[in-house]
Amino acid sequence: MVIYGWHSVLAALENPQRRFRRLLATENAARRLAEDNIKLPLEPELVSAEAIAALAGREAVHQGVYAEADPLPSPELDEVARGIVLVLDQITDPYNVGAILRSAAAFAVTAVVTTERHSPQASGVLAKAASGALEHVPIVTVVNLARALDELRSLDMMLVGLDSAGDVDLEAAALAAPLALVVGAEGKGLRQLTRRHCDIVARLALPGRIKSLNVSNATALALYIAKQRTNSAMQSTAVRT
Amino acid sequence: MVIYGWHSVLAALENPQRRFRRLLATENAARRLAEDNIKLPLEPELVSAEAIAALAGREAVHQGVYAEADPLPSPELDEVARGIVLVLDQITDPYNVGAILRSAAAFAVTAVVTTERHSPQASGVLAKAASGALEHVPIVTVVNLARALDELRSLDMMLVGLDSAGDVDLEAAALAAPLALVVGAEGKGLRQLTRRHCDIVARLALPGRIKSLNVSNATALALYIAKQRTNSAMQSTAVRT
Repeated sequence: MVIYGWHSVLAALENPQRRFRRLLATENAARRLAEDNIKLPLEPELVSAEAIAALAGREAVHQGVYAEADPLPSPELDEVARGIVLVLDQITDPYNVGAILRSAAAFAVTAVVTTERHSPQASGVLAKAASGALEHVPIVTVVNLARALDELRSLDMMLVGLDSAGDVDLEAAALAAPLALVVGAEGKGLRQLTRRHCDIVARLALPGRIKSLNVSNATALALYIAKQRTNSAMQSTAVRT
Repeated sequence: MVIYGWHSVLAALENPQRRFRRLLATENAARRLAEDNIKLPLEPELVSAEAIAALAGREAVHQGVYAEADPLPSPELDEVARGIVLVLDQITDPYNVGAILRSAAAFAVTAVVTTERHSPQASGVLAKAASGALEHVPIVTVVNLARALDELRSLDMMLVGLDSAGDVDLEAAALAAPLALVVGAEGKGLRQLTRRHCDIVARLALPGRIKSLNVSNATALALYIAKQRTNSAMQSTAVRT
């Protein structure tokens, strides 16, 4: 996979699990890496900014660094079925997936489950938008999402679908960790089969004229609410005992 | 400005304030407009999907409809200084601005204040990402943001900056409407001058390894918290009196 952009490449360089195949840097970027005492697992090839743009794409904000690396190992579902797990139902836009991974890392979700494999070009956009989050959130890639949801349920997770046409406000729903939050693609929402596999399908309560958010915004907000509500549930359990 | 994509063009067509210069539609899209009984303020030019792609850009998901229209009139600050106003400090990425406008409409903010004028190509991307929100949220374009913040303060608004290096958690801050939430650009954050004009600078409390969100995700979450906390402040005031 391709990783470019200062934050994303730096986070990858600082991840001992990450196996690099190539590291390209402009002279300026290489100097900055040296000045910041970044330990490099391999010698960077010194190249021009144009050479990186030719590889990363002309639109890419690469900031002078570009790497090719192996994807991190994908854990098994039973290794991550605790806390909050985020499940992506065919969300393919790399900007959205990247922003979602960043939020997932910010809200300390245990893992992100996805069916989608991305093209190398999309992986660069995704890694840039994730801003280093790829190094912090385990990603479980599954072949069949419905079967993965069955497995998460058998591991005692509550399955909460998120959809603007959901049955209940997420804030009013009885949420309990371990919890899997299942989010569908922009426009299409959750697939019927996915929806049927959820314990509840919840919506965000939006007071304005527009009744749905961009999928990464909706996911950030849902993670915030789920985190808050499962924490307070845990706290009130603790108080009761 | 350029508007394409089904939701965005439909919302514009349904807005009596919107003045169109051109409307282009594929035969399929024109048929769908007719079937859905959409009242058209002007006759659509029937064109191929390729002709729209040539105008909107090859990456544009135009869904067979494309319009050129005048921007909506920009209100004055004193007409919108109530409830929650969102202020954008040099956020230029059209995907992010579009998603932010969509969230602004979803959370019923009174207006969005911005300094930025967008290129026609960016306006199309922005309008698409806004998914119709441009028709629902008044946008106040100002020349000097610091002066606009002074004016909002003189209109009794509380000025709350949002920054990952803020002084206080937004959730713990004493918030009161009318409130202006001021958000800075991805990476750079709030400019020094903007920050100095705010009453408080708050951060989002993020429990994970990544300590900042994508700017549109951060804005959606901050709007949610601000809305919730100014509502409950109003309710507790009501209880007290």
